Amino acid sequence: MPRYALRIEYHGAPFAGWQRQTDVPSAQAAVEAALGRLEPKEHRIAAAGRTDAGVHATGQVAHCDLEKVWEPFRLMEAVNYHLKPDPVAVTGCAIVPDDWHARFSAQERRYLFRIISRRPTLVHDAGLAWHHKSPLDIEAMQAGANRLLGKHDFTTFRSTMCQANSPVKTLDEASVTGFAVLGGQEVQLRFRARSFLHNQVRSFVGTLAKVGTGAWSPEDVSAALEARDRAACGPVCPPEGLYLTGVGYPYDPFAEMDSGGLIQ
Amino acid sequence: MPRYALRIEYHGAPFAGWQRQTDVPSAQAAVEAALGRLEPKEHRIAAAGRTDAGVHATGQVAHCDLEKVWEPFRLMEAVNYHLKPDPVAVTGCAIVPDDWHARFSAQERRYLFRIISRRPTLVHDAGLAWHHKSPLDIEAMQAGANRLLGKHDFTTFRSTMCQANSPVKTLDEASVTGFAVLGGQEVQLRFRARSFLHNQVRSFVGTLAKVGTGAWSPEDVSAALEARDRAACGPVCPPEGLYLTGVGYPYDPFAEMDSGGLIQ
Repeated sequence: MPRYALRIEYHGAPFAGWQRQTDVPSAQAAVEAALGRLEPKEHRIAAAGRTDAGVHATGQVAHCDLEKVWEPFRLMEAVNYHLKPDPVAVTGCAIVPDDWHARFSAQERRYLFRIISRRPTLVHDAGLAWHHKSPLDIEAMQAGANRLLGKHDFTTFRSTMCQANSPVKTLDEASVTGFAVLGGQEVQLRFRARSFLHNQVRSFVGTLAKVGTGAWSPEDVSAALEARDRAACGPVCPPEGLYLTGVGYPYDPFAEMDSGGLIQ
Repeated sequence: MPRYALRIEYHGAPFAGWQRQTDVPSAQAAVEAALGRLEPKEHRIAAAGRTDAGVHATGQVAHCDLEKVWEPFRLMEAVNYHLKPDPVAVTGCAIVPDDWHARFSAQERRYLFRIISRRPTLVHDAGLAWHHKSPLDIEAMQAGANRLLGKHDFTTFRSTMCQANSPVKTLDEASVTGFAVLGGQEVQLRFRARSFLHNQVRSFVGTLAKVGTGAWSPEDVSAALEARDRAACGPVCPPEGLYLTGVGYPYDPFAEMDSGGLIQ
């Protein structure tokens, strides 16, 4: 029974998150239902990141086991056909070894958070970025983000519902960039780590936005981190700016398809 | 009665176009209704471009006459407040002379057309770009676009419903650029002219996409143009990739607000 890795893109809005839950739509259930149209049975797929309600993905990775040996491009096309009209698409597919696991083989998760700071309501980016009405100081936010880099006890930035065994994680990247958009600027925050705690990125962004407005200093971020206390965290920001953009593995299962171009 | 120029952004999907029509929603009616909340009367605003159903704008320009002397930033904020929850926002506002006219003072219209060519369904760009499943050759498209530059009788690229007096227009820019996106590429076409015929940009893009796939040669674009025959046109492409991005005037009424930054 060959195992397939799937790279999956989805819009967060219609889903109660990645993970299958009773009675509410999830991206996982959408993909499983599409697989069920190809091979009728109860599919249960495992994914690298359990994104929350409203959070987007452009590079979620999951794996599934199918009876049939599919040419990866054809499998991608078939799953995408059955995913319609849900806002979910498979953008990469590869056959992987039987012991390859989308979650346990993953060595790195990458997240992007988009903030658009301007006064007018968002139009084309509504639901695709966090609308922040006051201006943000990129350099101050980067100085604050630098305080989070490395190995720390991230209890402050962890949801009380987090089920991870340990609050100690190593943050490998926390970069803040910005560019002008009509009426303001877009701020993009990128985070990279082996794994993240529940609500960690949104807790980071809510806190760094406080630094961006000048309400907090970069030093306050260190103080919050060192407090190891959830109450010391800035507000958790909304989910619509957050994207799971990629997952790192010892080797990239999608490299072959990508180098060929998906369109051929 | 001071006159105000408004720069307006809107999502094309919910509207039957910019222009007010009976019994169907329009971006114009949305803005007029918001103005009516500020100064109760029948507002009739004039705009630079009459975009079709489904076409977006990031830089539509209109003008209105109000009784009250508003500080432009405050007027923008008040209109945006009343525009909610419609996907329409005012991103610039300025007091202009009484003889300034959003349509008749305009010297240039600028359009962007976004095509995403990849096999998988669009997710975050659904409704914001034309999904084109086969690959496109940017260089060939640019070579085709070059055939359209300058002053021509554009009868071939004009809707049969077009009400313009003359099919002769001068196209000042037709540029085609591309960049890689996951699973394919995004192609952006930019067009600039004093004014456009009805459906002209979408007729251009549908035709240039034929060149992009290799079905047509760049020379075929010249032949279609010279035919001065609507039947010689390639297919008119769908509206969801088209954006009215800006309007040029002898002076930019929004320069002061933009240089100050809208966020202050």
